[in-house]
Amino acid sequence: MKGTVLYGPRDVRFEERDTPKITKPTDAIIRISATCVCGSDLWPYRGINPVPQPTPMGHEYCGIVEAVGSAVTSTKPGQFVIGSFFASDNTCPNCRAGYQSGCQHAEFVGTAQAPRLRVPLADGTLVATPDVPSKDQIPNLLALSDVMGTGWFAAEAANVKPGKTVVVVGDGAVGLLGVLSAKQMGAARIIAMSRHESRQKLAREFGATDIVSERGDEGVARLKELTHGVGADSVLECVGTQDSMMQAIRSTRKGGYVGYVGVPHGVALKGEELFYAHVHLHGGPAPVRRFLPQLIELVLNGKINPGKVFDLTLPLEKVAEGYRAMDERRAIKTLLRP
Amino acid sequence: MKGTVLYGPRDVRFEERDTPKITKPTDAIIRISATCVCGSDLWPYRGINPVPQPTPMGHEYCGIVEAVGSAVTSTKPGQFVIGSFFASDNTCPNCRAGYQSGCQHAEFVGTAQAPRLRVPLADGTLVATPDVPSKDQIPNLLALSDVMGTGWFAAEAANVKPGKTVVVVGDGAVGLLGVLSAKQMGAARIIAMSRHESRQKLAREFGATDIVSERGDEGVARLKELTHGVGADSVLECVGTQDSMMQAIRSTRKGGYVGYVGVPHGVALKGEELFYAHVHLHGGPAPVRRFLPQLIELVLNGKINPGKVFDLTLPLEKVAEGYRAMDERRAIKTLLRP
Repeated sequence: MKGTVLYGPRDVRFEERDTPKITKPTDAIIRISATCVCGSDLWPYRGINPVPQPTPMGHEYCGIVEAVGSAVTSTKPGQFVIGSFFASDNTCPNCRAGYQSGCQHAEFVGTAQAPRLRVPLADGTLVATPDVPSKDQIPNLLALSDVMGTGWFAAEAANVKPGKTVVVVGDGAVGLLGVLSAKQMGAARIIAMSRHESRQKLAREFGATDIVSERGDEGVARLKELTHGVGADSVLECVGTQDSMMQAIRSTRKGGYVGYVGVPHGVALKGEELFYAHVHLHGGPAPVRRFLPQLIELVLNGKINPGKVFDLTLPLEKVAEGYRAMDERRAIKTLLRP
Repeated sequence: MKGTVLYGPRDVRFEERDTPKITKPTDAIIRISATCVCGSDLWPYRGINPVPQPTPMGHEYCGIVEAVGSAVTSTKPGQFVIGSFFASDNTCPNCRAGYQSGCQHAEFVGTAQAPRLRVPLADGTLVATPDVPSKDQIPNLLALSDVMGTGWFAAEAANVKPGKTVVVVGDGAVGLLGVLSAKQMGAARIIAMSRHESRQKLAREFGATDIVSERGDEGVARLKELTHGVGADSVLECVGTQDSMMQAIRSTRKGGYVGYVGVPHGVALKGEELFYAHVHLHGGPAPVRRFLPQLIELVLNGKINPGKVFDLTLPLEKVAEGYRAMDERRAIKTLLRP
């Protein structure tokens, strides 16, 4: 089969790769219905993370189970399934605590931009929908594999509750779905930090009540104005830079909550500022598996439509253009169909 | 009157100072029943924090109200009161959220190692006991002014709950009272990190079930052994150094909680390690005022005896010896009686 391989900065190729096979009794093989490009794929694409060797890409996926290993009992061929970017056994103490992305046996699933995918620990990782969904639900369900689960985790880590004031730092797909999550969780006021018109529009559609286009200290000052000098109850950090992290912390009220899901790049938090900020801080790689059953239900009941973040759909073989469009911010997120 | 003044590293003097007076209508003047030396007083005493000019010292206090300003309504002369090291109005949004140490009008109360003390914002700051307490309760009540409230906040920030496994990093008075707090909150297992026999003994008396004397990476390894490789549910960081902070974070299970109350000195947290640690982090200067009513009740009902951390009692004029004994770790905490 042909699949996606990153060779170095801005060098994405769609080329012949081995077709995946069952290698362990706990594996499953999936025929991909749709996959996509993640904001975090842009770190190596832009050369910020090194690419020491040609690297297969893609960690968001949904599709039809084609085959399962001899030890797999909860998933069977023909089912439509969604999994997370971290395969997890869902039985270890970390999984049982709801932190499947920190599973003691976690394996990164990183070869999903391809027509076929091997998923380790299939019983713990994959969640099947009751029926094979209609084609128009595929983008919504694909989003659950990472970007929606990550936005949801950001909102949960930031302790979003009914009636609260929420700020979302970052207007990428995760940030936008953080807005959607905060809305679902009953936030009264949702302030999206964004300076891109198309993203502001989607943020409003997802439930943002205010848009702040200033950044950094100016963004914090504007936010403080909007909250009578107090700061927000909950702030979702969905970028991962020093600036975005400090903006998030400084936008939070005393005793408020920062949920951070942007993979940190060069971030260092000074103990003293954090101490006097009096915020709660929680985040990390989202334990998407924890949220999958609930989020699948919300999608299938028509309560949420996270697939709206895909504003570009391409055939899988055009994957390089999918990366380019996101890199140049022409697209929020690219969906790829094999 | 004579009071305590720090002139520079290891130079504590007990010398003539102005007797405090009501300067604002919201002030109260207290006749100190007892005060003490705080672990944080040792930072400037040891020259780690600069002492740019002769500085009156002391921020832990209880005593009898002598006079109140014209605007004070909830406190009256003759009452026995306890206050926190941060005076707070107890009405601003931060106070109402339970973060009185981040009050929008907070003032540090820093001249308490003296026979008389001016307390600003008396209505918001001071909590009176129902009656003037007996002399033997004074150490227990004095402890509530900071050290017990701070240990309690560490445990609360670390989300200690019945049945949980708790680690306490730091065997100073705050750490020891963190053990006591965790016990009160129903922790099943309390692991105190300590290498000093007298402190280990008090930790056990307060409820520690295990003692770990290793530090740093070795301490983390030992702790992981004790928790089947998983880490603790709740970790109280009661020191404030880079090593103690990292030890706390690395001892916590995925999704667990670190409550940190040691004033950070030179601490910098790397975003990436924090991200993958998957811990909840909360701390800061303890909002002692929030806990005072509950803690006073626990003391007066004989449920807790936090005054046991005072293993040295001196007349106030011997304050310099009180600092020395703590600096040399001959005393856990020094109580001073005017």
